[in-house]
Amino acid sequence: MKKELFSRENHKEDTIIKIGNEEIIGNNKIMMIAGPCSVESEEQIIEIAKRVKESGANFLRGGAFKPRTSPYDFQGLKEEGLKLLTKAKEETGLKIVSEIVSIEDIELFDKYVDVIQIGARNMQNFDLLKKVSKLNKPIILKRGLCATIKEWLMAAEYILNEGNPNVILCERGIRTYETATRNTLDLSSIPVIKKLSHLPIIVDPSHAGGQKYLIEPLSKAAIAIGCDGLIIEVHNHPEKALSDGEQSLTPTMYNDLCQNIKPLINIMNKKI
Amino acid sequence: MKKELFSRENHKEDTIIKIGNEEIIGNNKIMMIAGPCSVESEEQIIEIAKRVKESGANFLRGGAFKPRTSPYDFQGLKEEGLKLLTKAKEETGLKIVSEIVSIEDIELFDKYVDVIQIGARNMQNFDLLKKVSKLNKPIILKRGLCATIKEWLMAAEYILNEGNPNVILCERGIRTYETATRNTLDLSSIPVIKKLSHLPIIVDPSHAGGQKYLIEPLSKAAIAIGCDGLIIEVHNHPEKALSDGEQSLTPTMYNDLCQNIKPLINIMNKKI
Amino acid sequence: MKKELFSRENHKEDTIIKIGNEEIIGNNKIMMIAGPCSVESEEQIIEIAKRVKESGANFLRGGAFKPRTSPYDFQGLKEEGLKLLTKAKEETGLKIVSEIVSIEDIELFDKYVDVIQIGARNMQNFDLLKKVSKLNKPIILKRGLCATIKEWLMAAEYILNEGNPNVILCERGIRTYETATRNTLDLSSIPVIKKLSHLPIIVDPSHAGGQKYLIEPLSKAAIAIGCDGLIIEVHNHPEKALSDGEQSLTPTMYNDLCQNIKPLINIMNKKI
Amino acid sequence: MKKELFSRENHKEDTIIKIGNEEIIGNNKIMMIAGPCSVESEEQIIEIAKRVKESGANFLRGGAFKPRTSPYDFQGLKEEGLKLLTKAKEETGLKIVSEIVSIEDIELFDKYVDVIQIGARNMQNFDLLKKVSKLNKPIILKRGLCATIKEWLMAAEYILNEGNPNVILCERGIRTYETATRNTLDLSSIPVIKKLSHLPIIVDPSHAGGQKYLIEPLSKAAIAIGCDGLIIEVHNHPEKALSDGEQSLTPTMYNDLCQNIKPLINIMNKKI
Repeated sequence: MKKELFSRENHKEDTIIKIGNEEIIGNNKIMMIAGPCSVESEEQIIEIAKRVKESGANFLRGGAFKPRTSPYDFQGLKEEGLKLLTKAKEETGLKIVSEIVSIEDIELFDKYVDVIQIGARNMQNFDLLKKVSKLNKPIILKRGLCATIKEWLMAAEYILNEGNPNVILCERGIRTYETATRNTLDLSSIPVIKKLSHLPIIVDPSHAGGQKYLIEPLSKAAIAIGCDGLIIEVHNHPEKALSDGEQSLTPTMYNDLCQNIKPLINIMNKKI
Repeated sequence: MKKELFSRENHKEDTIIKIGNEEIIGNNKIMMIAGPCSVESEEQIIEIAKRVKESGANFLRGGAFKPRTSPYDFQGLKEEGLKLLTKAKEETGLKIVSEIVSIEDIELFDKYVDVIQIGARNMQNFDLLKKVSKLNKPIILKRGLCATIKEWLMAAEYILNEGNPNVILCERGIRTYETATRNTLDLSSIPVIKKLSHLPIIVDPSHAGGQKYLIEPLSKAAIAIGCDGLIIEVHNHPEKALSDGEQSLTPTMYNDLCQNIKPLINIMNKKI
Repeated sequence: MKKELFSRENHKEDTIIKIGNEEIIGNNKIMMIAGPCSVESEEQIIEIAKRVKESGANFLRGGAFKPRTSPYDFQGLKEEGLKLLTKAKEETGLKIVSEIVSIEDIELFDKYVDVIQIGARNMQNFDLLKKVSKLNKPIILKRGLCATIKEWLMAAEYILNEGNPNVILCERGIRTYETATRNTLDLSSIPVIKKLSHLPIIVDPSHAGGQKYLIEPLSKAAIAIGCDGLIIEVHNHPEKALSDGEQSLTPTMYNDLCQNIKPLINIMNKKI
Repeated sequence: MKKELFSRENHKEDTIIKIGNEEIIGNNKIMMIAGPCSVESEEQIIEIAKRVKESGANFLRGGAFKPRTSPYDFQGLKEEGLKLLTKAKEETGLKIVSEIVSIEDIELFDKYVDVIQIGARNMQNFDLLKKVSKLNKPIILKRGLCATIKEWLMAAEYILNEGNPNVILCERGIRTYETATRNTLDLSSIPVIKKLSHLPIIVDPSHAGGQKYLIEPLSKAAIAIGCDGLIIEVHNHPEKALSDGEQSLTPTMYNDLCQNIKPLINIMNKKI
């Protein structure tokens, strides 16, 4: 039987993903992505970018096209948002991570974005997966809210099968009956993925926990269990954020988190 | 606060959907959709179409663009599949229901399809929802595998908000821990939807149960609880089907089902 | 391999359960159980008993020992509650169903109760199952909140294996992520159980739905899918009930429900 | 409103539990419990006890009364099993943890066991909780398979409310749709519990993961997120174990695990 491209049986060594000559994840390199849920203004994104860079982040995240449960919620600044991310990149040197939601925006993402995120709702939007793959940029593939690990890997296979090997999986919590947390972060998925696949995997404690106080403990657990990176929502004024304020850290809280996980990263023989 | 367009508070009467002057659902009209998971050949689709029409179906379903968990599984005959559906329509008069998976195919669906289905995986593919809405054709919106009823209604709102009022909701089972059935058909969603919304709702017992013997009892329960239609997989050779054979009825079984649910449809004061 | 006693492979015919010479369930006999969540007073239980009997119920339910999530919630009238149920039985002739929660109460249940209920929380309290079995009274075994159908049948096996064949399964909803209903009534479990087992199965729409307006539609669906009975909460003053008021029907609503399901019971070739 | 006894609002400091004068958990003391799922023989339990003690365990677990899904599965050596645990205690000094399943066994547990475990299936067996509380021994209360954190704390309240403050919560995974692991270890519950309650909490990675290779990574994550102990299944011949062999570590694997988590325990400023 044909072995899937994601399978570790096909490819024993961990995948290392590069942008240009720079290794961004894999080979014990931890990817630290931080930034607001939504890009809201130049001032906002630049201030946050500067602060998270000082704390140790190496990628800036920011949503420009926002998939929202309600059509009446803020849908993002769109191209303007991508331009503001580029300004923040020029200012800080941080590479840009942003979510794509339509194949019509592929050229914009090619122009402005370094790492393209596919959100949980679109994990099995196979049309989007296939067309985004063509850009050959690294793709963060978030786990669907009730995707099995096998379905998630098969979604990654849609990208790999188009000739783009640069897939980064992202565990962001699954939907369960428990309501004390926004979703249930399934940290077991990290060792399961590491056994089945050579692909790197990062963790999003912000969406999983849904509340500020959970981010640091979940981040520590994620590092200790062997993930390759963290994507964390940071906002300079969480109480005024246009989306996800309650789960956004302040820059100061993010700085503390970065300090507090360093000893764990060292123990795991990894580096940011 | 702005009341959503789906809300029964805004629109007391049940929505009735028409194609031309013909009422297809609502106003006690039951929509009976039947056909194979995938269109496979001219012979297959025409034979099935004839048989399900004889049994009482008024719509033919058939997948031409198939979203599959694995990229290596059969992905559908694509435009050729839509053409074959059209032949079956010419032969039988049955109107056509088929699933769209990419905004690039909108013109094809405009040309060949009477009722457009949005599958469970794409329930929150808002880009697709918005663009398909523009065709102004009736849209069957399947419930996402772990969508709450509220999220599902908000996805319908994306369509309504584009000016297309012809949304048919479709309960097709949710993902739970139970493995005796493929998914867990959440029949409670029908009275909940009827309370919250004026939109019609149909049930897909085939995908929910995942096994032939469950289709008829689930169909009876669906009618008794007040649904407005049934979408059922029928294949002339289920054992050779390219997808979903184990949950496809034979035309004879479908005929029995239609006979056996008639008394229930009468009791509910509805008609096919 | 040893075939389990619950298995239809061992016992082709449906189990019929009798009390004395009277068939209470099976052989197309529908068991209609109604009454309050908790026995609260003589006046309350006797009034409800009279009213539900007039509507067609043949069993009176009432909790005397209440397992409650919080130790500070009303825990039931205990033996006094069982005595009040007996008064209602003398007054109306309705047989008594009540839930046992401790092996220490077995003698009381032997004395006062006709059909013993094991609640969802105790489905795998194997000690209780084994000891209650010895009374040789019919036992209603509710499905655990996240029990698989297989685990539920294996719990029934603990009773059957003690020599008591009089097990009535009760589907009462499973725990899922959906919050629009208290639990998700898994009506698919009825045809699955009917295929795997000869045991009768009833449905509890009150606990599953958790809201009055859902009880009648869920009851209709339950009858249409082939269940052997309904256990429904009825209270003369739901707004003052010491427990579960929001999901209790008034006697008048219960009477309507009984009228409205009769045509369905007839179609299914069953009788109360 | 009455504040629950489990609440941190009532009791700011972490609970420290002692046996005699010895602190066993709380105050940065990590409880390391190890041993077989079932006590099978004197040779087995003594060998395992010696080996896990050498590795750093301070408690020996072993099931003598086994709640099993099937009545035909091995149900434990019962009193004989408790006696063998006592021999292992005499030999090694390890204190004994074992699960109680019936109120009839309370005297035996009083005599032979140091810390009494309430299993997941009995989390809401309130009768058992209340009666076991009277012994005033420390009680490990496992989370029910689909218990919310709130329900779990309310079950603890049944114990606390009887005057026994020595409750140790145990996260052991919840039931979800994911099948790659036996259950889904909900590590988020640790920071949630730490926020809501002063009670200590340990983690059972063996039952949650269900496979050997997952135990060590889950243990690391559990320590990093702030748990107060680990309960791990260890068997000298996992391939011959009468229960749970596939998730049991060998003594050598357990020794490695203890070595590998030490740096994490140090970072967390805790000690075994």
